[in-house]
Amino acid sequence: MTEPFRFELIHQSKKSHARVGRIHTPHGIIDTPNFVAVGTNGTLKSLDNHLVSSIGLQLMFCNTYHLLLQPGTEVVKQAGGLHEFINRSMPIITDSGGFQVFSLAYGSVASEIKSQGTKKSSNSVLKINDDGVLFRSYRDGQKLLLTPETSVRAQKDLGADIIIPFDELPPYHIDQKKLEKSLDRTHEWEKRSLQEHLKSPNGQAMYAVVHGGIDQRLRKKSIDTLSNEPFDGYSVGGSLGKTKEELFELVEFTMPKLPKDKPNHLLGIGDLTSLERCIPFGVDTFDSSYPTKSARHGVAFTEKGPLKLTKGSLKQTFTPIEEHCPCHTCKHYSLAYLHHLFKAKELTALTLCSIHNLSYMVRLMERYRQDILLDKI
Amino acid sequence: MTEPFRFELIHQSKKSHARVGRIHTPHGIIDTPNFVAVGTNGTLKSLDNHLVSSIGLQLMFCNTYHLLLQPGTEVVKQAGGLHEFINRSMPIITDSGGFQVFSLAYGSVASEIKSQGTKKSSNSVLKINDDGVLFRSYRDGQKLLLTPETSVRAQKDLGADIIIPFDELPPYHIDQKKLEKSLDRTHEWEKRSLQEHLKSPNGQAMYAVVHGGIDQRLRKKSIDTLSNEPFDGYSVGGSLGKTKEELFELVEFTMPKLPKDKPNHLLGIGDLTSLERCIPFGVDTFDSSYPTKSARHGVAFTEKGPLKLTKGSLKQTFTPIEEHCPCHTCKHYSLAYLHHLFKAKELTALTLCSIHNLSYMVRLMERYRQDILLDKI
Repeated sequence: MTEPFRFELIHQSKKSHARVGRIHTPHGIIDTPNFVAVGTNGTLKSLDNHLVSSIGLQLMFCNTYHLLLQPGTEVVKQAGGLHEFINRSMPIITDSGGFQVFSLAYGSVASEIKSQGTKKSSNSVLKINDDGVLFRSYRDGQKLLLTPETSVRAQKDLGADIIIPFDELPPYHIDQKKLEKSLDRTHEWEKRSLQEHLKSPNGQAMYAVVHGGIDQRLRKKSIDTLSNEPFDGYSVGGSLGKTKEELFELVEFTMPKLPKDKPNHLLGIGDLTSLERCIPFGVDTFDSSYPTKSARHGVAFTEKGPLKLTKGSLKQTFTPIEEHCPCHTCKHYSLAYLHHLFKAKELTALTLCSIHNLSYMVRLMERYRQDILLDKI
Repeated sequence: MTEPFRFELIHQSKKSHARVGRIHTPHGIIDTPNFVAVGTNGTLKSLDNHLVSSIGLQLMFCNTYHLLLQPGTEVVKQAGGLHEFINRSMPIITDSGGFQVFSLAYGSVASEIKSQGTKKSSNSVLKINDDGVLFRSYRDGQKLLLTPETSVRAQKDLGADIIIPFDELPPYHIDQKKLEKSLDRTHEWEKRSLQEHLKSPNGQAMYAVVHGGIDQRLRKKSIDTLSNEPFDGYSVGGSLGKTKEELFELVEFTMPKLPKDKPNHLLGIGDLTSLERCIPFGVDTFDSSYPTKSARHGVAFTEKGPLKLTKGSLKQTFTPIEEHCPCHTCKHYSLAYLHHLFKAKELTALTLCSIHNLSYMVRLMERYRQDILLDKI
């Protein structure tokens, strides 16, 4: 643990809320705005962390819920922490587990983030009260209690550079009264999380999670409440709307109200359109599994737009995905070969396309930062 | 194409038929005895060829049948040949497609090689006669004719360093008369293949395939017949027995009768026991998907024997698979992490274990060569 956590503002655009910054963490610098790849189980799908580091992704997102169930955070602690366990020397962020445990109760993660969740009965979640959530592990049937304190202690075991307080994720389809009650509970949980964290900071930073669903008044209330607490940064979570436009409206409203001297993060959003639309609102970091998920569906990112690698016309295209791309895949393999690997259902295809898409994201974010520095955004 | 194909005998063991040699090919040297990894579709499963080259595997086996159906050998030719298409600068060997097309007719490849095949009706194979085999592509229903000439022309398009003549693969359960007839047909097909090959050698070498099932007299006849033809090497194929002991007996009988000044290859056999037993009989190269297949089943090779990576006791084992192993996986990741990746069903696990197992094979073969040089084998 060399450098303490701090946010350095490099440039505030004259044209928008967009800004270029630098987050200093014990495991190195994160240039912002930046894209954060999701490695749920301590690995990006079909890639190894040594390779991922070489691509230049400065921050990696791991999920506490998954690591709690497998291999267990005490195992990771014994290994010397997550960086050691997964062999990553660059920064890591973990979430609280709240998102996953509440999607067990209210619907799938994917449908919840898109606000399509409807309340489902699920016998995986046994009890939700002011203390936290009691649930049953889908792996071994063991009962587990996730509370602000247990979530933070799990994240202490993991030892990520940035951690997240335990929050409640209410479903999109919730009545106003329940949403307000949920917000109060979330604020209480976040404060308890912060207290638990501050008992032994260990060089970790904690980002609050701003909630309030799509209700601007409640979002404002959440910001006001959480800004009074000594969090190191602010993330925006919870239901972000049913449509992209609703999301953009919410982010436009929310981001400029966050404390300017702290870094912020937009949880679970990172598709190309959302990046383009949300960077001008001043978002510093975005996490998403979009580039690796697209790759596994055979979609490569290019400056001309997404390219479906199984497209027949690529069968005899002996040039790389992008001529100027410096990534391993573009340096060594042609579109025709990638097309063939996807057609032949070879796992290698998933790896090679993921490498390119992540490399594309690294270059894309570099361009965004350049454009902000020049006040073009 | 720099160096012409030739076999250099380095050392003949005083203790057995084992020998150390060097096969010179247009794409570099293959030290023998050696293990040949199988990359059916032009890639090893879950690995990319750039990585595979760095592991040090000197020869890679690709399957003409698969590449004929996907992407088509004319596409590979347009790419500049297989080395260019798959980005491999080291030697490649291709088979004739006979093995696969006859297992369509007589049973699966796996059951056939273990001689458990029983004649099955299959409407994929439409006609077998002295000309060759007419079959229907499982990919697009297209009718394809595989003959000595079309197989060799396909292998010319692919441009591997070592190619194989088209042969008939009779089922294990065949009566004596049919086996003799099949052997005569195979010899005719191999001669036609050689003729076709010699029209434009292009620096490629052709290895004959010795047949005769488990009948020693017929194996001897096959060797005598094929030794009279100007093949560059000799492989041993066809049904090799129902049990490991039957296989070893056959290899012991066959190998010493092959021309000593040419390299030889044992087709489709490469598990650790078979290597140990067959190297003393003088086998130069072995091909098998065993190390990568084992890896995908979570089995890592170690000097102490195979290690099942999902074994509970490895959950907190923070040392690599093998302490002294120089491979990417052992240099960067612990058994506990690999155990976790397998438990979490991450594709990364398959890649990392495959890297180790192939690296193990490279080091194992080096040790075999050392032992032969010292007349210990």
